[in-house]
Amino acid sequence: MTTPDQLLQILQNEIEKNSYGEHPIELYEPIRYIMSLGGKRFRPLMTLMATSVYTDDWQKALKPAQAVEVFHNFTLMHDDIMDCAPLRRGKPTVHEKWNANIAILSGDVMLIRAYDLLLDIESDRLRRVLQRFNQTAAEVCEGQQLDMNFETRWDVTEAEYLTMIRLKTSVLLGFALEMGGIIGGADAQATTLLYEAGVNMGIGFQLKDDLLDVYGDPAKFGKQVGGDIIANKKTFLLIEALERAEGKAKADLDQWLASETFDKVEKVAAVRGIYDSLGIRDFTEQKISEYFATGFDCLERLEAEPSRKKHLMGFVHQLVEREA
Amino acid sequence: MTTPDQLLQILQNEIEKNSYGEHPIELYEPIRYIMSLGGKRFRPLMTLMATSVYTDDWQKALKPAQAVEVFHNFTLMHDDIMDCAPLRRGKPTVHEKWNANIAILSGDVMLIRAYDLLLDIESDRLRRVLQRFNQTAAEVCEGQQLDMNFETRWDVTEAEYLTMIRLKTSVLLGFALEMGGIIGGADAQATTLLYEAGVNMGIGFQLKDDLLDVYGDPAKFGKQVGGDIIANKKTFLLIEALERAEGKAKADLDQWLASETFDKVEKVAAVRGIYDSLGIRDFTEQKISEYFATGFDCLERLEAEPSRKKHLMGFVHQLVEREA
Repeated sequence: MTTPDQLLQILQNEIEKNSYGEHPIELYEPIRYIMSLGGKRFRPLMTLMATSVYTDDWQKALKPAQAVEVFHNFTLMHDDIMDCAPLRRGKPTVHEKWNANIAILSGDVMLIRAYDLLLDIESDRLRRVLQRFNQTAAEVCEGQQLDMNFETRWDVTEAEYLTMIRLKTSVLLGFALEMGGIIGGADAQATTLLYEAGVNMGIGFQLKDDLLDVYGDPAKFGKQVGGDIIANKKTFLLIEALERAEGKAKADLDQWLASETFDKVEKVAAVRGIYDSLGIRDFTEQKISEYFATGFDCLERLEAEPSRKKHLMGFVHQLVEREA
Repeated sequence: MTTPDQLLQILQNEIEKNSYGEHPIELYEPIRYIMSLGGKRFRPLMTLMATSVYTDDWQKALKPAQAVEVFHNFTLMHDDIMDCAPLRRGKPTVHEKWNANIAILSGDVMLIRAYDLLLDIESDRLRRVLQRFNQTAAEVCEGQQLDMNFETRWDVTEAEYLTMIRLKTSVLLGFALEMGGIIGGADAQATTLLYEAGVNMGIGFQLKDDLLDVYGDPAKFGKQVGGDIIANKKTFLLIEALERAEGKAKADLDQWLASETFDKVEKVAAVRGIYDSLGIRDFTEQKISEYFATGFDCLERLEAEPSRKKHLMGFVHQLVEREA
């Protein structure tokens, strides 16, 4: 079987070869730019590995897998406008490097190109994949809107936050695996398990992102530890803390959240201390383990030869163990 | 046969029934809002009438026809952000009524919903329609980018302008007719003729818009006559004038274009006078007639019973005769 590393190499080559269009250059250069910024490409890899569980002909998932990556980067291009983000993967965002209008319109074309790449699917499976993709794509937009809504709210519940991250980030991972299964010829039970595996893993990954921001090893974590705390970002940890804190802990937390001038190191240490006192770290780690366990359980229950599942299982294990 | 008026009524009812989604409300309310602002719905009507040329079962084109209307309104929502337009059909634009982020994201969902509506097409025709739709949709974006590029250029040629309006406005009309034919079961020659008819008619309509802005009857023209002249908008007439003017006409035109404070009535009269002196009105009317004639010729050449074509032909005639 083709290994994940080999699949990644092939995928990278394919992504580099795609021009997306030529004229006018203002519309297509930003697409090539954002697609060239890299990223781990783990969504399309998931698709290829899910297809590989059912057939050696994973090549037939190569274009649809790229559709997932193009769609993901479309959401990044538009989200970056909405979030006024100056940088993406350490480089200027499209709306900064060009302008917001170009980022809107190039993003629109990316969404159309994602549908183009999906048309490579065989006719008997095309409609089903498109139905699932449409639902997923709309849900990702819903998640982004909820995320924006949460920015101005201080009463977001754990359940609301989990719904938001499920929509904004996890359903696309579920779709990536599910589509790989559909293209490979998996039955309905298997594609449901693949979808659920992806969604649960995705929620686990997002919660782990939230956790690592606070408790990550600075030597291994790529970004500044505590960035979310400094920015008052409503992560799982902060939402839990807001739900649990009482008395002095609540007063301290509210004060740090309201403070406009502060020493960054001091704020990170103080809020982390509040999280510790409320048992947030253990609780979050437990939640993450539960989501990962549910995800793995779905993959275990897939009826397929263990030898055919090993690359997918191994790859997911590796993602779960990451510390950055 | 069902008349255009009956089809329009049915279409309006269907459009009103569609909710597009519910939660979060910030994402779906703007979609219902822009879809409720009206418009003549002539793109989806074209689809239904093209289907009716080939089958009495025009109902099977009802959802795909709405896809064209939803897509068109998606482009309006995003274009209005890019153009900083305060009003659309006399009502506040979505980015004014809500904000730009909501207009970006609601627009994205509209594009996805357009694809949803296209999935109602029978399997043996679905891929072909989607390929044609993807190409058309990307071209519409290319046209919008060219239009924005032209804003800062004074050397736009007639050929470049015609390319821009073909992409920005005409290919969608071509697609609307072509898709109606495909759904109705028209052969390849017929669908090509339908597409060409729509594209040529579309260019004619846009040129007529440009003409009416300058030479329209104020009593019949809905908007302020001369609005494009006041705004220095690069219409077909201005581009022709810039290509042709020499000597005093050129100096006068340049002066009016450069002037920042002026009497509106005086500017409109002066620029119209320059157009008259250069024969722009006759030339534009001749161009419009040529495009309409080519479009009608394509429809004439459609091999179908005259009785089945009469509603489509009559409707297009009526559009051609409009003076607002």
